[in-house]
Amino acid sequence: MITAQSDNSFVPAASNIDGAEFPKISDDLRVWLQIKAPSAARVQVAGALLPSPDPVDLERDAEGNWTMITPPVVPGFHYYWFLVDGVRMNDPGCDTYHGWARPTSGIEIPTGDEDFYMPKNVPHGDVREHWYYSDITGKWRRAFVYTPAEYETSPDKEYPILYLLHGSGENERGWSLQGHMGFIMDNLIAARKATPMVVVMDNGYAVAKDPAAYPQSTSRSNRSSVLADVYLKEIIPEMESFYRIAPGKENRAMAGLSMGGGQTAFIGFNNPGLFSSLGFFSGGGVAADAFNDPSAYGGLFSDAASVNNKFDVLWFGAGTDEPSFAERNAYIKKEFEKAGIKGTFYESQGTAHEWHTWRRCLHEFTQLLFKKGTK
Amino acid sequence: MITAQSDNSFVPAASNIDGAEFPKISDDLRVWLQIKAPSAARVQVAGALLPSPDPVDLERDAEGNWTMITPPVVPGFHYYWFLVDGVRMNDPGCDTYHGWARPTSGIEIPTGDEDFYMPKNVPHGDVREHWYYSDITGKWRRAFVYTPAEYETSPDKEYPILYLLHGSGENERGWSLQGHMGFIMDNLIAARKATPMVVVMDNGYAVAKDPAAYPQSTSRSNRSSVLADVYLKEIIPEMESFYRIAPGKENRAMAGLSMGGGQTAFIGFNNPGLFSSLGFFSGGGVAADAFNDPSAYGGLFSDAASVNNKFDVLWFGAGTDEPSFAERNAYIKKEFEKAGIKGTFYESQGTAHEWHTWRRCLHEFTQLLFKKGTK
Repeated sequence: MITAQSDNSFVPAASNIDGAEFPKISDDLRVWLQIKAPSAARVQVAGALLPSPDPVDLERDAEGNWTMITPPVVPGFHYYWFLVDGVRMNDPGCDTYHGWARPTSGIEIPTGDEDFYMPKNVPHGDVREHWYYSDITGKWRRAFVYTPAEYETSPDKEYPILYLLHGSGENERGWSLQGHMGFIMDNLIAARKATPMVVVMDNGYAVAKDPAAYPQSTSRSNRSSVLADVYLKEIIPEMESFYRIAPGKENRAMAGLSMGGGQTAFIGFNNPGLFSSLGFFSGGGVAADAFNDPSAYGGLFSDAASVNNKFDVLWFGAGTDEPSFAERNAYIKKEFEKAGIKGTFYESQGTAHEWHTWRRCLHEFTQLLFKKGTK
Repeated sequence: MITAQSDNSFVPAASNIDGAEFPKISDDLRVWLQIKAPSAARVQVAGALLPSPDPVDLERDAEGNWTMITPPVVPGFHYYWFLVDGVRMNDPGCDTYHGWARPTSGIEIPTGDEDFYMPKNVPHGDVREHWYYSDITGKWRRAFVYTPAEYETSPDKEYPILYLLHGSGENERGWSLQGHMGFIMDNLIAARKATPMVVVMDNGYAVAKDPAAYPQSTSRSNRSSVLADVYLKEIIPEMESFYRIAPGKENRAMAGLSMGGGQTAFIGFNNPGLFSSLGFFSGGGVAADAFNDPSAYGGLFSDAASVNNKFDVLWFGAGTDEPSFAERNAYIKKEFEKAGIKGTFYESQGTAHEWHTWRRCLHEFTQLLFKKGTK
């Protein structure tokens, strides 16, 4: 089975920790996994590296190394882990990322000549770790905040702001670490394709210190009224006082991926006076509610002219390799057209429910933001 | 053996990931470890959680949970991992930290009423992820940079700068994540005990793109001339142009822990015109060379008056539970006294070769910095 030894095209993944030989990736994007476990009776791999969600067996060699070579993997970022005699563990060759609600191995599968998310010789903004106390949750919270390079040298300038939400099981580091959002924004701003903006990446989970105040809310939900309150009463005031942010709805946008897309709809459509633009990256489910339930969002969607007036950009993206999300966007598109609501719809060719789809979404969406009146 | 079930004082460690029951810590700082591995024949724990560096066996219960309760653990931050039938894996209840040159489990053992490193209701600075290209290594490098809270609202003010180095097997995230340096500085600055300063935490490893240019240097070394050049030609110019830094040696300091202390001596004593103050946290080895080899650092230490004139603060700290480091500092102290060189020596009571020693060192050292002429 293991013919890779004779295939010179396998090289260590770019995402490996320093000095790790495995995992390796071939020219045609097969992944060669290997872990030493001489005493194990069974070693499997699971996660999002393989087409099936079921664990797949590795094969043991005489030295106790367990090996497999996957079929070609969809380009982008994929979480995975090993099961060694049933015990879940990360690949020692990888860094860990907060996914699946714990530290989890991840691998970057090359995206060919697509380099919009890679560091280039352009001015670089900073991604700042920012701590603040949340009365609603009774805890210190951590946000990551991108400030563009020119923020440092323009002390009198105020910037528009994008609130950018992660997915289920991830945390506030996801967009900068897995998503490479800083490099995406640096490159767009340097090319004058995006308006220089501040981007806030906070945590998508919030448990109330006083649960009785939020009887309907659960922490892990697209419709968390605790999280909505944390945004309205804590995150937005904190960010827009600490950083130099231009006032008003026209300078404020929100977007999120997967669960974060649902949260964007819940917070954004329930507070239509707050954000001028909303983005849904593989996560328009809660937005689709508007057409199933006419009373949703205070009946907002029953008046197309009012929706078109309230929002500059309503943006929906998904990968072609995540059919259920692509189909939901197609449904929303049809309903938008029927109702006469303006929306932007984007398909990421050949990508799945993973970070490369969302990198592309961010790259497309942010080029449309905060441009009203500037054209 | 397992009597912990009847001991109500065991609670999940503060450093556990959200919702994880284990590891737990008792009032008297014993740690209760547990991992489910029904098929395993042997499960051990290793790392820095136990007094001995040798792996210690856990005990299996009827459900396949492997358990142990450690003796009371020294307060502070400790790396550890499991060996499941000999395969190294992290504790699924913990976050991972870059230590031992890979993602590694870590646990916070409470430090009683000592809270100088905890977040408080004071203005908080940001810790910024800053990327720049390094010609010497041919790679993009990432630094973390602390800017104090007032940096945001004082656009005309320039700040002194401290370069702060991590230890062997760690990386540029260590000081902010394991070390809590941001909270330490926030609290000191709010109490007016430390001068507001920018703190740069870069990576302590550097491999030259052109190794022939650095024939004597290895990447993993206290005496890396590649790293020294990266500091002199890349890190310092990058930081002192991107951020608002007050010019001159009197506004520049360097400190490091363990390996980073050796690097601080190598870079700082070989370039005595560059830094006004140097700090060695459990890492004065390379500094001790000055007394073993009179030609070290261009003979700098042969002239006590010159050393005293060149440096405002030469600072050495170590924990009382790391005897070899404490003894080396005692040796340096004796030699300093003999030679008439001014130094500050600090013992961290009851702590070992781990982050709580270094948190305390940072807390003490930074209170002495950048105060010449202000008293």
